[in-house]
Amino acid sequence: MDKRKGTLFFKNKPSIFKTFSIVGPKEKQSKLGKYYDMALDDDKFDESTYEKAECKMLSTAVSKVIKKSNLKKDEIDLIISGDLLNQIISANFMARDFDVPFLGVYSACSTITESLILGASFINSNNFNNVVCAAGSHYATAERQYRYPLELGAIRPPQSQWTATGAGAYLLKPFIKGYPIITSATIGKVVDFGVLDANNMGAAMAPAAASTLKNHFLATNTTPKDYDLILTGDLGALGSRLVKHLMDKSGYDIFNHVDSGELIYNLDEEDFQGGSGAGCGTVVMASYIYPKLLNGEFKRVLFSATGALLSTVSSQQGESIPGISHAVCLECNL
Amino acid sequence: MDKRKGTLFFKNKPSIFKTFSIVGPKEKQSKLGKYYDMALDDDKFDESTYEKAECKMLSTAVSKVIKKSNLKKDEIDLIISGDLLNQIISANFMARDFDVPFLGVYSACSTITESLILGASFINSNNFNNVVCAAGSHYATAERQYRYPLELGAIRPPQSQWTATGAGAYLLKPFIKGYPIITSATIGKVVDFGVLDANNMGAAMAPAAASTLKNHFLATNTTPKDYDLILTGDLGALGSRLVKHLMDKSGYDIFNHVDSGELIYNLDEEDFQGGSGAGCGTVVMASYIYPKLLNGEFKRVLFSATGALLSTVSSQQGESIPGISHAVCLECNL
Repeated sequence: MDKRKGTLFFKNKPSIFKTFSIVGPKEKQSKLGKYYDMALDDDKFDESTYEKAECKMLSTAVSKVIKKSNLKKDEIDLIISGDLLNQIISANFMARDFDVPFLGVYSACSTITESLILGASFINSNNFNNVVCAAGSHYATAERQYRYPLELGAIRPPQSQWTATGAGAYLLKPFIKGYPIITSATIGKVVDFGVLDANNMGAAMAPAAASTLKNHFLATNTTPKDYDLILTGDLGALGSRLVKHLMDKSGYDIFNHVDSGELIYNLDEEDFQGGSGAGCGTVVMASYIYPKLLNGEFKRVLFSATGALLSTVSSQQGESIPGISHAVCLECNL
Repeated sequence: MDKRKGTLFFKNKPSIFKTFSIVGPKEKQSKLGKYYDMALDDDKFDESTYEKAECKMLSTAVSKVIKKSNLKKDEIDLIISGDLLNQIISANFMARDFDVPFLGVYSACSTITESLILGASFINSNNFNNVVCAAGSHYATAERQYRYPLELGAIRPPQSQWTATGAGAYLLKPFIKGYPIITSATIGKVVDFGVLDANNMGAAMAPAAASTLKNHFLATNTTPKDYDLILTGDLGALGSRLVKHLMDKSGYDIFNHVDSGELIYNLDEEDFQGGSGAGCGTVVMASYIYPKLLNGEFKRVLFSATGALLSTVSSQQGESIPGISHAVCLECNL
């Protein structure tokens, strides 16, 4: 077996030059609230539907990261994005606002790391100078699509997570000294442990996270000790316990592991296991972790976002929920 | 403006080593029927639902192209795939059958060319040796999801197309003499001409196809005359007329243009404008056009698959249908 399989090494050091995050009112009031670039008081964002609000958040994140980088739209070579809605409409309709080549991706809540892997690949091969990677989610649209309309007032079970309302965008450039770089990445495999409960996504995703972390350590000849932080997203509290357990069984003590779903909210009975959603890991990395790489607090962070490949049609047909996790290694040597 | 924007040049000549296509009974009985590798008499493929059949077709195409290439599953470095179902379940559940790194993509019926662009990029950068790119669709699942359940017997309007039941897989390798290579590609932009009719996808996609073809000609300093064939997929008859008209207005006579949606079926009243679906261009290229490159009949083919970014939620909210088209240039110099 080729232990490097699925792992990429970016020799030209693609840099994350700027990030931008926008979140909803609940995220604003939670413990990471002060770190986000922009926070809404109205989670409809002056739109008539939550779906339109979600799209506007994603579009705002992309616009603002371009502006923050002192670039104009026509200097952007490529946008890579996805979201949780059917036919990734938030990303597709966002891309309509930009006259820029666009690649749509779907990897559930691991979409941001899939985007970053592809973005880093395009920068690394020297064809592209400015690539935007973006992802987002919205609590109200995800609940309606995957579970129940909010108006129904369905009771949330204790194993559930709260889909984050948030979008983040990352502007990637060829190597710039002093900025975090993507040095390597591991493309995940679809892993299915037979979880049937659409409310227990942490359990569905934990095996995928463990698979990718192991493959990344093997391919890069590293162990958890080589990282200042191992960030998964968005396993929640129970999923985090599970991934620690699975890694421990494989001989890895991920003592420095935290999960973006555990970080994003205050401890609140309604949230149960914490946050989830394609926007969750995206905004936590963009606004809470990225600055710590930029200021030297962290030198090397492994970011393995996790996706539950949940779909109502497959669940109704009795299928289990497979998971996937793509990992990127971010480093900053000032 | 950088006229090369969005266009990639693959200097290391990634080769399409083998292709495999599988289609349903209607496709089998149509004029290209004899070209496909495998054709079903039962479009449920011995499964209990059409969704499971669609997934099995995609999985079969991937398995068989690996076998046809004399490879084993564990020699595959990466699978890139997508489909039309919500959360691309056919592709995600297909990937579960293979213990291989997987990237999910969504670009509606342009998914196969997005996959080929990414596959060629991974091969070109020398990291990967065997990459499978695949896409598919199923008439029954697409009708149910996007329009009406078949049981309803809804009347099809004359501007409609028939979603192809078919899946295709392409095995990409670093340069092998004598096999078709991907020399360049153009990543499309999301283009919206304000089409509101979910039955008139040809009109929604034609502007995107015209945009990508123009950008490709500009970036590569070519004109239609430099190609033996310009294959779009899946604009259908009306969409083909529209793209010819739009290109003509831009000063390009695409005299050698054919559309996979026009090719795939016999002229039949029920089909109206011809075929569509993520599987349509995929199987036409894999089984009808690819062999003509392989045997020297064609030296250079431009393949621009087209996607209508249609979604029930966005349509119900009054949104128009944007389109996208990604193009790849295939060449074979024996």
